[in-house]
Amino acid sequence: MKRLILALLLFPCLLLAQQPPVSAYVCPPCGGSCDTISFSKAGICPHCEMTLLSKDEKERPVKEQQTTVCFYLYNGVEVLDFAGPMEVFSYAGFKVFTVSKTKEPLISQGILKIIPEYSIADAPLADIFAVFGGNDEVAADDPEVIAWIKSRDQATLSYFSVCTGAFILSKAGLLNNLQVTTFHRSIEHLQKAVPSARVLKNTRYVDNGRIITTAGISAGIDGALHLVAKLKGKEAAMKVAQHMEYDKYQPDQGLVVR
Amino acid sequence: MKRLILALLLFPCLLLAQQPPVSAYVCPPCGGSCDTISFSKAGICPHCEMTLLSKDEKERPVKEQQTTVCFYLYNGVEVLDFAGPMEVFSYAGFKVFTVSKTKEPLISQGILKIIPEYSIADAPLADIFAVFGGNDEVAADDPEVIAWIKSRDQATLSYFSVCTGAFILSKAGLLNNLQVTTFHRSIEHLQKAVPSARVLKNTRYVDNGRIITTAGISAGIDGALHLVAKLKGKEAAMKVAQHMEYDKYQPDQGLVVR
Repeated sequence: MKRLILALLLFPCLLLAQQPPVSAYVCPPCGGSCDTISFSKAGICPHCEMTLLSKDEKERPVKEQQTTVCFYLYNGVEVLDFAGPMEVFSYAGFKVFTVSKTKEPLISQGILKIIPEYSIADAPLADIFAVFGGNDEVAADDPEVIAWIKSRDQATLSYFSVCTGAFILSKAGLLNNLQVTTFHRSIEHLQKAVPSARVLKNTRYVDNGRIITTAGISAGIDGALHLVAKLKGKEAAMKVAQHMEYDKYQPDQGLVVR
Repeated sequence: MKRLILALLLFPCLLLAQQPPVSAYVCPPCGGSCDTISFSKAGICPHCEMTLLSKDEKERPVKEQQTTVCFYLYNGVEVLDFAGPMEVFSYAGFKVFTVSKTKEPLISQGILKIIPEYSIADAPLADIFAVFGGNDEVAADDPEVIAWIKSRDQATLSYFSVCTGAFILSKAGLLNNLQVTTFHRSIEHLQKAVPSARVLKNTRYVDNGRIITTAGISAGIDGALHLVAKLKGKEAAMKVAQHMEYDKYQPDQGLVVR
């Protein structure tokens, strides 16, 4: 009888022992800076607003395939051109990585020293190939870089250019016969470079289906939100914009060619 | 007579020989990526819209003192938090440099590997001290970093925080008794951290004279444009906004405490 009582008393303790207490909660992989923070309680991440997971849950394989984005950077790339879309795509849950011709450090905006994650020799393929403005000639006039972009064409679902990044896509022969846009001071120049295209001014972005080009510098944010809306729905894009406090976001502000 | 005719014929050639042809034109130092480009003809820089100088002119000492801005970065800093103001300040002609605790590479947004230009051991003083959100605890909870920020106080004319960068300023005791703002999900948290401050929600930025705090992530662009307007005039800020194609800029959108 004593043994039975003891067993009954111990039973709940044994049950608890089978479920070790969760020591920490973490963000689901969001690409954001909060990916590396641990929290002591379950709840909402104050940074990305996603529901926290226990560490065990995070380690389970993710079923949904993450959209991958290759950010091609180069010496003289404009800082906001790439940073706006990087912020947007990372909070949309896309996996973003940086590539340059080599892994040598490059300088953005004459200020920011960046080490690219990959070179063109070892960069993985990506769903989206993104290029940005600045000293775009560094990439556009480099036959090796252009050949490398062309070599990835079959695996690339979408191309995305911000500002004068459009010149890089034009050198890869991707803008022929399309409606496109670029930095406001480069409209005529791009028109001369791609006579078969129609280069539009005063257009925040132009979506040709596979190829999206945006206007200058800050317009990359709107183009990136448009791409998120297209791939994950308008609500997802609105959520990212709200998180970024980009209440100036106007859905459908650009031109979608149908 | 022959000698006289020869001398008269040669005279214009001698004059030309005294003025060697200008081989290249360059941007005035604008902090932008176009600072490194050479142009064969005089005119307007297609990137920053400033009037090009001959190389000789550029080498002349600049009379006007450039406003300097220290960007304090750390592991986990949010990419758009600092990239928006970096774009704005560089086109306003400010000299921006990056600093972190050490010169080791740091990762922004879990994606971008950055090498800071200076460490806290050798960073020069600056007119403006700027901090940004993300994993702000990395800086805010580091007594060495906070002591270093305090040690520069006398030389600092303005403090500028974006998003949860406000927590770093709060740890340096800079927000006491002020009206301030931060990332929308951190309003209550900052209010608890600085009970004597009034932490405002739905406010794009708050300017207390010496200390400017902005709302989250993209609000840094507006706060930076406000600071440019304050230091260089509204027209200068509008010119930067137009160059960046940030037609969503609304001057005087934040609160200026008088």
